[in-house]
Amino acid sequence: MPPTSATPTIDDVRRIAAAVSNWGRWGSEDQLGTLNHLTAERVASGAQCVRRGDVISMAVPFDSDGPQRGGWGRFNPIHLMMRDGNDAVTGTTVRDFYGGFDGYVRGTDDLLILPLQAGTQWDALSHMVFEGKIYNGYAATEVSSLGALKNDIAQAREKLIGRGVLLDIARWKGKPWLDGGEAISGDDLEDCAAAQGVEVRPGDIVLVRTGQMGQVKAEGDWGDYAAGYSARAPGLGLASAEWIHAKQVAAVATDTWGAEVLPTETRDVSMPMHIILIVHMGLTLGEIFDLEALADDCASDGVYEFLFSAPPLPITRAVGSPINPVAVK
Amino acid sequence: MPPTSATPTIDDVRRIAAAVSNWGRWGSEDQLGTLNHLTAERVASGAQCVRRGDVISMAVPFDSDGPQRGGWGRFNPIHLMMRDGNDAVTGTTVRDFYGGFDGYVRGTDDLLILPLQAGTQWDALSHMVFEGKIYNGYAATEVSSLGALKNDIAQAREKLIGRGVLLDIARWKGKPWLDGGEAISGDDLEDCAAAQGVEVRPGDIVLVRTGQMGQVKAEGDWGDYAAGYSARAPGLGLASAEWIHAKQVAAVATDTWGAEVLPTETRDVSMPMHIILIVHMGLTLGEIFDLEALADDCASDGVYEFLFSAPPLPITRAVGSPINPVAVK
Amino acid sequence: MPPTSATPTIDDVRRIAAAVSNWGRWGSEDQLGTLNHLTAERVASGAQCVRRGDVISMAVPFDSDGPQRGGWGRFNPIHLMMRDGNDAVTGTTVRDFYGGFDGYVRGTDDLLILPLQAGTQWDALSHMVFEGKIYNGYAATEVSSLGALKNDIAQAREKLIGRGVLLDIARWKGKPWLDGGEAISGDDLEDCAAAQGVEVRPGDIVLVRTGQMGQVKAEGDWGDYAAGYSARAPGLGLASAEWIHAKQVAAVATDTWGAEVLPTETRDVSMPMHIILIVHMGLTLGEIFDLEALADDCASDGVYEFLFSAPPLPITRAVGSPINPVAVK
Amino acid sequence: MPPTSATPTIDDVRRIAAAVSNWGRWGSEDQLGTLNHLTAERVASGAQCVRRGDVISMAVPFDSDGPQRGGWGRFNPIHLMMRDGNDAVTGTTVRDFYGGFDGYVRGTDDLLILPLQAGTQWDALSHMVFEGKIYNGYAATEVSSLGALKNDIAQAREKLIGRGVLLDIARWKGKPWLDGGEAISGDDLEDCAAAQGVEVRPGDIVLVRTGQMGQVKAEGDWGDYAAGYSARAPGLGLASAEWIHAKQVAAVATDTWGAEVLPTETRDVSMPMHIILIVHMGLTLGEIFDLEALADDCASDGVYEFLFSAPPLPITRAVGSPINPVAVK
Repeated sequence: MPPTSATPTIDDVRRIAAAVSNWGRWGSEDQLGTLNHLTAERVASGAQCVRRGDVISMAVPFDSDGPQRGGWGRFNPIHLMMRDGNDAVTGTTVRDFYGGFDGYVRGTDDLLILPLQAGTQWDALSHMVFEGKIYNGYAATEVSSLGALKNDIAQAREKLIGRGVLLDIARWKGKPWLDGGEAISGDDLEDCAAAQGVEVRPGDIVLVRTGQMGQVKAEGDWGDYAAGYSARAPGLGLASAEWIHAKQVAAVATDTWGAEVLPTETRDVSMPMHIILIVHMGLTLGEIFDLEALADDCASDGVYEFLFSAPPLPITRAVGSPINPVAVK
Repeated sequence: MPPTSATPTIDDVRRIAAAVSNWGRWGSEDQLGTLNHLTAERVASGAQCVRRGDVISMAVPFDSDGPQRGGWGRFNPIHLMMRDGNDAVTGTTVRDFYGGFDGYVRGTDDLLILPLQAGTQWDALSHMVFEGKIYNGYAATEVSSLGALKNDIAQAREKLIGRGVLLDIARWKGKPWLDGGEAISGDDLEDCAAAQGVEVRPGDIVLVRTGQMGQVKAEGDWGDYAAGYSARAPGLGLASAEWIHAKQVAAVATDTWGAEVLPTETRDVSMPMHIILIVHMGLTLGEIFDLEALADDCASDGVYEFLFSAPPLPITRAVGSPINPVAVK
Repeated sequence: MPPTSATPTIDDVRRIAAAVSNWGRWGSEDQLGTLNHLTAERVASGAQCVRRGDVISMAVPFDSDGPQRGGWGRFNPIHLMMRDGNDAVTGTTVRDFYGGFDGYVRGTDDLLILPLQAGTQWDALSHMVFEGKIYNGYAATEVSSLGALKNDIAQAREKLIGRGVLLDIARWKGKPWLDGGEAISGDDLEDCAAAQGVEVRPGDIVLVRTGQMGQVKAEGDWGDYAAGYSARAPGLGLASAEWIHAKQVAAVATDTWGAEVLPTETRDVSMPMHIILIVHMGLTLGEIFDLEALADDCASDGVYEFLFSAPPLPITRAVGSPINPVAVK
Repeated sequence: MPPTSATPTIDDVRRIAAAVSNWGRWGSEDQLGTLNHLTAERVASGAQCVRRGDVISMAVPFDSDGPQRGGWGRFNPIHLMMRDGNDAVTGTTVRDFYGGFDGYVRGTDDLLILPLQAGTQWDALSHMVFEGKIYNGYAATEVSSLGALKNDIAQAREKLIGRGVLLDIARWKGKPWLDGGEAISGDDLEDCAAAQGVEVRPGDIVLVRTGQMGQVKAEGDWGDYAAGYSARAPGLGLASAEWIHAKQVAAVATDTWGAEVLPTETRDVSMPMHIILIVHMGLTLGEIFDLEALADDCASDGVYEFLFSAPPLPITRAVGSPINPVAVK
């Protein structure tokens, strides 16, 4: 279902969205979307992918050196100590926190201020609104100043562990990283999987590597990585939607800020794939994944499937969650 | 190695701590402690515990209804929206966040302010200081206002997924929950495991259920759950340290605020097991786990082993991490 | 203009609001409301009230012992150190913050997380919405997730210093504090001023003491002070609106959580005086003022006028500001 | 008392500090330092400086466009809405915050996350440590992770309103702004005052304009304004300490990030004037003041004295406070 004009518009987006929409598919009360594809049986088959037992993290460190540059008010995580080892050494833990009683032990405590979209994260199905609706047709007003009364990330608390598949598009294309503006199609995903000798199955969590995280590391600077619409980034193109839908994957994640290609392929739509994938398909989307170590490992042993684990923090009414996704090879 | 007097003192704590200390065991640079027991091979054997593929979360919801009551400055998570569905509906997303350009899609964003010890969490090995030292003999001053330069929770980013074992002490004792002040010994842990027909192996993550979380739910009130030293709670007693050490477990978690029995068994030490387990043994300790659903499941199928997954968020220099631990049966 | 029925309703509120409305009075672009009454000349006359030069603060301490109990998500201020004196003592300031260079001096830094309505504060004219509008007829959507584009507290950055008058209603009535539910009328305000021998003039900042803050101190507990609509509190009644309007005061503040009497005098309106005073009159309202020390001073010298100073912090787009109001006698 | 060598060292700093030290001057329990100079009588004489009643704010807006660039963990204020006008419009205020009861009115609420040194602010006397001590000889450990038990900013809650004097050094030197590295001496301050025809008296709050804030505005960019030690900025030199001491001023504020000249005049001391003024003299120092409008006003009427008002927020145990300082001419 490729766009029918040279420059796709909102009409194309609407058409694709309608074709891959899962509204009502799992009932009018559903808040899980494509996570429904991740059945217990498929979780079990994910566990069977473990061979060596090596664990590879895909999280970017949560700290002040993260990618955020202030766009839309997002900033990098702020970490603060509430009590520390110095208090233990000078005696102020006992004086100021233990009421003067010295029971020998002294604890340390800390605190984090974290925009939930700041680092490696899942977008909840309440993270995107299109024409006044969120996934499954719930009114956008279900996401008020109090948070998401529908489709919050806590719905997924017992999901997002299962079979993971890495599609290393950059390596498959013989590049260290894709270019900004380079769109990934369904054919690319299919051909890459075939070339890697891995089958994408229903319920899989599919990780798509563009190499942009590697580029950031090579350049030693986040640059415009999190610059939003104004940036250039490789990513999922409109022509990937139908493949993702047909494959019945549970979730997709990439190593970029916004998962989809930037600038977008549409003349008038800011993030068409967010409309199609999140709002209509009900796909849980992962962003800012560091896939470099995993990709190296997969390239080295030729095995692109693994147990993937990244259940979100059950933050009530949240529209996203920070995660530390791990692959177990 | 039970305490030698009717009322144990710091001398007993020192003696037990020395007996189970792992300082230097994995080298002078080690920052993982007992997580070293969790080898790749053992991770793989954990994955083999998956049978049905059912996923059970052990996290308490992260929200304002959590257990904290202000002690030591800890408070329940504060969740705030940065942009919401109402902005999408009224048009202020476009006006105020998108520079007036209407690209059809509208996002929502949120933020969390979270004491890292507020809810279901891992204590990092930098969370406790004893006699000016943290685990492996690092100076307490390695944990400054900037955070933990040694033993921070980010060290464990590729650990804490492996074989999990539930020891349901409350059910084994035929009680809905243990009493405040009821201490769990190594013999209790051993006998419970035997009664459950499960073997605790090196590298396991052991979950100890006291039932206190069930009590909170039954009573509909957190009460003194997070009241600290002044509370009464069941938990690990001094007589459990040697067993935990001998078994070479990777981590231990409980369904209580502080893992160890309160009031403590010592006359003069506030949290002796925190000294013994965290500072000397180098054991990553989990707290505020909700083990109720898992316990019901294990009781129903008689299987007390499972794949356990809860790698921490790699928060740089943090002394703890919120987690959503899951068991896959 | 007293309500015309035994139990006033929204119709009475609408009628009173219309009678005292200042919408358009200072032009369609106005964002200051009654602060317009505070002309330079009147500021100067306020300065002339200073005799002895004694300064009396009316702020409640900003800390965790404040009045908030979680209602509407409000909590007491959270204060955290970013660097402290212990870092200076142990050397971690130099190691962790100064790049290892010891230039002899060591700084300390801190941070505050503060709901702007948590303590002693001004309500901005954007703090209240009635029938889709804020003061001067601006659409409520001018107050989005980005904050208040109209009527934010920063508008008042060069206001709120001028002649202050204390009306000590409790003392005038011969009580230590008014009762919960006890309404203050325009006649009360007028008669109290007369009894005190003080004239209320245009542009004044009028402080109305109910004594409730004294009650809190006497009882050693905030109790239901900040419990919102469900609490009982003395305060301004509907019958005070016309007086406030006629007097052309610049601002009014009280020693209660919500300035108006609770339960309210209306059957169907939650906070009628907030509609009347903030939305329609455009009156900047001060709350949680500690008037005890000032009241004692005024009673002792019989002088109820003074220089009042409490310009808000110019927090861009904020709907309130914490303040430390001072009276200079 | 000018430094005795071409390049002053810590010995010179110690000598100057000793010469101007106020430790013990107001007793061993004193926590106010030079604010003691601001007697009631002098407050009253400050009020007499008001002529026209014009109010001029000196605060930089508290928002994300502030000067901070992350140094020492400082960031610009983060403002978040907790409830907004959109909730009022769509009905979610009633649904999500008022328990479904529609009492006609709808409130908005907000929250600020603010490093207390981020914008226009007072440094408390606990903000600086030298040789293990803070002002008046208190141990640095009085400033723990819990905050400042001595010399916190709340001590000054009834101070910092009084006679203000502007010394417009830049204008006096005939420059739009001083150069980075340009030091201001006591002679400069004295001569400037004389040229302006204003006398600096005991208890005054002295505002020293370098013009750097005007430079920032002219250039439309904060640049290195808040870059710390590595920046170049005009400011107070070592040769100003004795004058400030002799004049018995209550407080000093400037329009720069750090009040003193940068790079400093010392070979080995990072911020010598912070040692001398804050730690030893006990001078409350104001920073990041916007003196542009005030300077224009003073130049226009030739009157450089005014009522100054900026009592800090009484944030318990804080080492600084945001303020909105105003001058009333």
